[in-house]
Amino acid sequence: QSLKIGLIPADGIGKEVIPAAKKVLEAIGSDIPKPEFVPLLAGWEVFQRTGSALPEETVEALKECDGALFGAVSSPTRRVTGYSSPIVALRKELDLYANVRPVVSVAANPGDKPAIDLVVVRENTECLYVKQEQIVSTENGREARATRLITERASRRIGKMAFELALGRPRKQVTIIHKSNVLSLTDGLFRETVRAVPRLAEVNGRYDSVKIEEQIVDSAVYRLFREPQIYDVMVAPNLYGDILSDAAAALVGSLGLVPSVNASDKFVMGEPVHGSAPDIEGKGIANPLAAIRSSALMLRFLGYPAPADRIDRAVDQVIREGEVLTPDLGGKSSTQDVLDAVLKKL
Amino acid sequence: QSLKIGLIPADGIGKEVIPAAKKVLEAIGSDIPKPEFVPLLAGWEVFQRTGSALPEETVEALKECDGALFGAVSSPTRRVTGYSSPIVALRKELDLYANVRPVVSVAANPGDKPAIDLVVVRENTECLYVKQEQIVSTENGREARATRLITERASRRIGKMAFELALGRPRKQVTIIHKSNVLSLTDGLFRETVRAVPRLAEVNGRYDSVKIEEQIVDSAVYRLFREPQIYDVMVAPNLYGDILSDAAAALVGSLGLVPSVNASDKFVMGEPVHGSAPDIEGKGIANPLAAIRSSALMLRFLGYPAPADRIDRAVDQVIREGEVLTPDLGGKSSTQDVLDAVLKKL
Ligand SMILES: CC(C)[C@H](C(=O)O)[C@@H](O)C(=O)O
Ligand SMILES: CC(C)[C@H](C(=O)O)[C@@H](O)C(=O)O
Repeated sequence: QSLKIGLIPADGIGKEVIPAAKKVLEAIGSDIPKPEFVPLLAGWEVFQRTGSALPEETVEALKECDGALFGAVSSPTRRVTGYSSPIVALRKELDLYANVRPVVSVAANPGDKPAIDLVVVRENTECLYVKQEQIVSTENGREARATRLITERASRRIGKMAFELALGRPRKQVTIIHKSNVLSLTDGLFRETVRAVPRLAEVNGRYDSVKIEEQIVDSAVYRLFREPQIYDVMVAPNLYGDILSDAAAALVGSLGLVPSVNASDKFVMGEPVHGSAPDIEGKGIANPLAAIRSSALMLRFLGYPAPADRIDRAVDQVIREGEVLTPDLGGKSSTQDVLDAVLKKL
Repeated sequence: QSLKIGLIPADGIGKEVIPAAKKVLEAIGSDIPKPEFVPLLAGWEVFQRTGSALPEETVEALKECDGALFGAVSSPTRRVTGYSSPIVALRKELDLYANVRPVVSVAANPGDKPAIDLVVVRENTECLYVKQEQIVSTENGREARATRLITERASRRIGKMAFELALGRPRKQVTIIHKSNVLSLTDGLFRETVRAVPRLAEVNGRYDSVKIEEQIVDSAVYRLFREPQIYDVMVAPNLYGDILSDAAAALVGSLGLVPSVNASDKFVMGEPVHGSAPDIEGKGIANPLAAIRSSALMLRFLGYPAPADRIDRAVDQVIREGEVLTPDLGGKSSTQDVLDAVLKKL
């Protein structure tokens, strides 16, 4: 038996951090089935070569995999006909409806409670990301319209994911993020549907112990900075979740630390929250910790919590010791140094 | 000659901070024409009494005013048929297309450069705020759609406002906030139109000295927290601007400090960025400084920079001395105490 993992480094520092995560998975040993890696293409670079940012073979190959790791994509600086973000397309094609982004600060001492410990559960398939846009020319100039789609079905399944995650956490709290004071139908539907999850017949009282809170998105971001401790699980429509998870990342010191998975009930793809970082590409100083943590989170979703814990503990130790850190965290070490430090602690 | 100012305290602490701002305007003296105040209704409370959150008379009366001050609105906690936000409606009815929100920290010593000094210029009439929503029932449950509208016309005028403001600031930089990597047509149009403002024939080279930057909205929020000093004027579509201005407010210590104006080329309405704060309503401890600063900003837009400076300096002194502050800033003083302190410094 083996664990088949698709590897899609894509662009920029994706090509530096995904190989690091791969090395960590290889070093895990007998806690997981022997990993078998499938290198796959996507991104702006492959688009420039082939005219497709997400080759059909990549999607097909992923369907044969148990899980995957995705790096990051660069965006063209101008609008380019035919190009569209492969990560958005992948989430949709594989119906990876949940984007789960835990944001946790590392406590000063092992065993201490981290100061920030929340998880953003972002709906991953709809909202403005359906990318239904039109543009028309009028007497008064051009007018562009985009559709924001919120369905009961997608809101319910992301809601369930949020409650399920909350159940496994000490605080057991879900905060629904919305803007229903302006978007009464779309965000109203999201809010109402997530609120109703604990009362679904099929759920059978399972979430009765979970506390429900809610926040309007603008004030949610404000309070995230002022009192991050009020949050446990935040569940949000796609775009708000995108913004919130970057905001939360700022709180723990670097986007280079925050992992995510894109998950359906059948498949899971780890992905660092950071982007392709063209400014540091190729310098060997990208922080591999978000990618490494993403591989741990992927293992967790694949049903291997013990090796995931081992990886997370190793990463925490490296951060806590503070001796081998990349420049984004104020250190002077290289991607390779940080990887070596993690491997040593495993 | 007098200055006719509509006063719309609306809900919650709006009714405590707008009277404070009124007192400051009355105390300004001969630097401005004698203010004449017109008390006007709007909000959730008046909706509950009359079935209208924005009475027709309020809109009509404002058309006879030189400027206005708006407090804050409470939102119903459930969806209420017929209710919709009066502030959103006012912005649209009076075509107050620019929402200008300066976020400035107070320097430790007078004359020092503030650590944070930026202004969010938010488009105020379109984006998802056009509130064109539908909901339908399907086999798979309900589906709601909202339209996000971005026009060249609105993007151009908000762009001009941003460049004009940048021109009056030492750094002369405009950062365009967008998400055109996903919303290539709507945010693409916004970005492209704002970028093109300096090249408009009518502008005649006026903005040639202004530097243009851009940021994707999620990373803009991240960097706002990590390196706020990279921003000078941020120009954004409506919803991003809403979120960004709350995020920026968190940086300077309290939403209770951040003023705004809603402006057209003919009319200007000051509005503190904070909400109605039902949790502290009626306790007499609401921070009046955002409303007071909003009255100064209103005067600035009405062409009275000197009294605006006087008010801002008085507010800065009170904050700097740190002796008379409301609880949101860690103090123990009341709204009235803070107002008195400002009046004394005027
Ligand atoms: C690259 C971009 C399309 C993407 C998104 O908006 O989802 C990124 O910001 C993310 O958060 O994964
Ligand atoms: C109350 C609400 C409709 C409003 C908005 O979203 O514009 C508020 O958040 C603001 O920023 O003025």
